[in-house]
Amino acid sequence: MESSETLAKLPQIIEAATRCFQDKGYVATTLNDIADAVQLQKPTLYHYLKNKNELLFLVLKNTAESYNQALEAVVASSLSPWDKMDRAIRQHIHLQLEHPGTVTLFRDVGELDKPYRREIRQALKRYRELLQEIIRQGIEAGQFRPSDASMAALFVLGAINFVHRWYRERGPRSIPEIAEFYSDTLLKSLSKS
Amino acid sequence: MESSETLAKLPQIIEAATRCFQDKGYVATTLNDIADAVQLQKPTLYHYLKNKNELLFLVLKNTAESYNQALEAVVASSLSPWDKMDRAIRQHIHLQLEHPGTVTLFRDVGELDKPYRREIRQALKRYRELLQEIIRQGIEAGQFRPSDASMAALFVLGAINFVHRWYRERGPRSIPEIAEFYSDTLLKSLSKS
Repeated sequence: MESSETLAKLPQIIEAATRCFQDKGYVATTLNDIADAVQLQKPTLYHYLKNKNELLFLVLKNTAESYNQALEAVVASSLSPWDKMDRAIRQHIHLQLEHPGTVTLFRDVGELDKPYRREIRQALKRYRELLQEIIRQGIEAGQFRPSDASMAALFVLGAINFVHRWYRERGPRSIPEIAEFYSDTLLKSLSKS
Repeated sequence: MESSETLAKLPQIIEAATRCFQDKGYVATTLNDIADAVQLQKPTLYHYLKNKNELLFLVLKNTAESYNQALEAVVASSLSPWDKMDRAIRQHIHLQLEHPGTVTLFRDVGELDKPYRREIRQALKRYRELLQEIIRQGIEAGQFRPSDASMAALFVLGAINFVHRWYRERGPRSIPEIAEFYSDTLLKSLSKS
């Protein structure tokens, strides 16, 4: 009984941890804060969590997986490489700006215990490789100009990852406007013609 | 006597603080570490420093000013907007990759006391405005396509600021190769034709 209840609460706990880490910072957040937020006793948390570090790992893994799944679906689609890149950029900007705090937490990757850190870095690498695969396909199809596809993927990633740093919900630009600008500008930079 | 000696040591102290903050992180570094690094007694440091926070401020101010001065020189030059942007991107990449640790310290802007933080944010804003000014000139001269010059400046900044995160000194690409790639790719994205 307890174990299935506990399991059912896991997504809620991850969500609460995400909010606590965003509000107070990873270092300042305690497991008590998180227990309070989901109205559990702290000992109950230990039924399925080793410690706060594992919780940070779960939060980051959760985010990284949702980005990777979204990008994998684009790569596997029947779109042209050009349209795949257009879709990839737009969905990245939407994911990022609709949940800006989650991205900020990746700054704390260095706080993770080594095996956790390795797994998160692997997931981030996977995302970069998927972007690179779209670029490679675009070069092969003659839509993108031949260049260093690996550096081009890092170039795209740097540009689109910076957006949450300056975006303001009440700012002058909507999320679709920003997505449009970034897709248009990046596709022009990659374009063969 | 002492005050002129002290003043003479200031650049050395800033340099030592930069290294300590890079190695141990701002929070973990103590004024004792810095005093040791410059072979001064800690009370001597207090002759011209209020605290560690002021030292972080001086380190960041120093870096921001060197970037701003370099970019101001480009804006004031007689180059065409296109060539100004080319120069601006290359020198940004060189400055960043030749001193990668200094850029990382800007993550700690949030640790600064409010008046310091405001001043550093002003300096970073100045840099963005200078980039924007080059883009504005390029649109006016018909070299860059008309677009949101302010968002374009943020776009350029995101792309070029990410480089220190993946650059490796013993990696496959030299600093000039990276500078060449970024200048070429970004100019294509801004180009009217």
